[in-house]
Amino acid sequence: MINNITLNWPAVIEFGLGKIQSLTEHLEGCRRVFFLIDIPIKSQVDPLLAALKQQGLHIMVSTEVVPEPPFSALAKLLAPVKEFGPDAVVGIGGGSAMDLAKLVAVLFSGKQQASDVVGIGKVNGRGVKLITAATTSGTGSEVSPIAILTDLENKTKKGVVSKFLVPDVAIVDPELTFSVPPATTAATGVDAMTHCIEAYTNRFSHPVIDNIAIEGIRLIAANLERAVKNGMDQEARAAMSLGSLYGGLCLGPVNTAGVHAMAYPLGGEFKIPHGVANSVLLPFVMHFNLPACTQKYANIATAVGTPQAHQVENIASQGILRIRQISQRAGIPSSIKELGIPEAAIPAMAEAALKVTRLMNNNPCTISLMDAENIYRRSFGGELS
Amino acid sequence: MINNITLNWPAVIEFGLGKIQSLTEHLEGCRRVFFLIDIPIKSQVDPLLAALKQQGLHIMVSTEVVPEPPFSALAKLLAPVKEFGPDAVVGIGGGSAMDLAKLVAVLFSGKQQASDVVGIGKVNGRGVKLITAATTSGTGSEVSPIAILTDLENKTKKGVVSKFLVPDVAIVDPELTFSVPPATTAATGVDAMTHCIEAYTNRFSHPVIDNIAIEGIRLIAANLERAVKNGMDQEARAAMSLGSLYGGLCLGPVNTAGVHAMAYPLGGEFKIPHGVANSVLLPFVMHFNLPACTQKYANIATAVGTPQAHQVENIASQGILRIRQISQRAGIPSSIKELGIPEAAIPAMAEAALKVTRLMNNNPCTISLMDAENIYRRSFGGELS
Repeated sequence: MINNITLNWPAVIEFGLGKIQSLTEHLEGCRRVFFLIDIPIKSQVDPLLAALKQQGLHIMVSTEVVPEPPFSALAKLLAPVKEFGPDAVVGIGGGSAMDLAKLVAVLFSGKQQASDVVGIGKVNGRGVKLITAATTSGTGSEVSPIAILTDLENKTKKGVVSKFLVPDVAIVDPELTFSVPPATTAATGVDAMTHCIEAYTNRFSHPVIDNIAIEGIRLIAANLERAVKNGMDQEARAAMSLGSLYGGLCLGPVNTAGVHAMAYPLGGEFKIPHGVANSVLLPFVMHFNLPACTQKYANIATAVGTPQAHQVENIASQGILRIRQISQRAGIPSSIKELGIPEAAIPAMAEAALKVTRLMNNNPCTISLMDAENIYRRSFGGELS
Repeated sequence: MINNITLNWPAVIEFGLGKIQSLTEHLEGCRRVFFLIDIPIKSQVDPLLAALKQQGLHIMVSTEVVPEPPFSALAKLLAPVKEFGPDAVVGIGGGSAMDLAKLVAVLFSGKQQASDVVGIGKVNGRGVKLITAATTSGTGSEVSPIAILTDLENKTKKGVVSKFLVPDVAIVDPELTFSVPPATTAATGVDAMTHCIEAYTNRFSHPVIDNIAIEGIRLIAANLERAVKNGMDQEARAAMSLGSLYGGLCLGPVNTAGVHAMAYPLGGEFKIPHGVANSVLLPFVMHFNLPACTQKYANIATAVGTPQAHQVENIASQGILRIRQISQRAGIPSSIKELGIPEAAIPAMAEAALKVTRLMNNNPCTISLMDAENIYRRSFGGELS
């Protein structure tokens, strides 16, 4: 029996080379637009901004994007945007830029505070048009109902989940990713693959999302190394953009699980980029989950190019090794130790990870505090088996 | 290289048993709602309408749905709806009901006439919320930018295609399909499968849509006979609903091709239900297209359960026979002759079909006037090979 599902996706998704130009069409009827733009992409979109200005659009541009943004980074943006009074908010950048733009869109009016909306379904509404354009492949934030802030005090990440954070228009233009450096390409690519894997093997998985997720896994596995090695490889970049979009489409209806929950403390306390944290943990959490989803892991193994084997358990295990290899070939460190995190931090990280219940509840196997510690310890050493 | 694509789908898609109840949530903030409801489903939604009224909603209900609706059926609805002045329009029914509701939503203000908006991109805007709920599996109209009217004078169908016809919310509730009689289940089911097949093998096919289309074909092929034989088979009905939704999602970004173009004259002049017309023509148009898309037809063949064969041509041909068998097992006539259409009508039908250029242009092979006549003649006799 096919379960119920709500698909809450942007009404318009523009995919393809040069699609950033569709902003002109999608801003028709708007008068005052606030742009939050990641600084490395700014010069690439400047001609478009100039054209929009010439058409009479009032534009306010900020490039104050802080990676893994703390609450204070959001707070800093709100007052000037309120004063500007936009009727549309556009976020162009990676996950941090788009998450901040999404939060600015629902909070700049001042009716709710950031602390009011942490959690699921706490946002009361949104009065402006919201458009996102992704410049990494990627976070998936361009199509998701999620924005993540770093809680510096408690050294963890806090999630805001709301249908009002789903943009009206999402633009996925591979051209915007050409200049992303190899290390970021690698980390964000594995993040996108992790979205697909954690949705596909989710406790609340759904055939509609499975269909997208497995194709996302296939696209990313086949193209990540190429995109890392040659950022100008249009084919690989387009495939990564589509795979990342698929990963993003999984986030609202099903979302991630144990890997993301356990990655948050690495980001919250040690400022490890989100994709790197996911990449290091992914094979170890998969290894832990293996008994609960052998067939699905075998399907993933096939999607990532693992040769067929007689036993489903064999191919599933081989698939985990292959996924680790994909990360390694993309140049991502393979252990927590290599990230410079002390082993002594593990118990506190395990406690913090267990608190991310909105994701831990999605994991195919229950992860106890002791399990989390064990997974961190194995990821620390980096020995998989 | 992955081509560009614009996905213009409803911002919210509610799929699953009992999801019609989500109307309450989606009408929050609305005050005056016009409902166009197919009469057979009316009693099933009456309790919901009563509940909405009790919550203070002003409701106007019409059941004036004409199958394969002519322009006059639309015209009749517009004036009373204008007088009522809704802020939301809800269409609950099959393709005719939803198409009419979609057109009412964009035309009741009177700023444009029906004749102004025939074609692609002619609608200027929509000032009200638009919600559709499908009661057949199905037309796909619940998620598509398309509405079809019958031009009685020219004895053909006319299409209105516009992003403003894409509903804000689409509800696909298999419970609403339980009472659909076997013949309608069969015809609408093959219509949905045809959407998937014609999108998958389209001249403008796209991997994003291919992924959805092939899964739609699989679901419908596996469940149509069950749904026809036992309308209360929840599993089969849910699978058909999802397959039909997938078919609908193909319509905006890629759309149909030769089968639909050639089916229109059967509906326009001879009032043959849309799904029956598609079903009769489908194997013959596929046979004509076979040389241009052998591999894709082989993939379709696999999706509909054709046993593997050594040669791709073999399995592709076998797939066409299997698709015809699926229609036959669902009780749909296999030839134009059986539909009571005289053979003498063929030349005029071929001419009319060629005029449906917006779909003919999508066909993987060019269909000349002579080709169209030949395909109609073969479909007339019903001999496939």
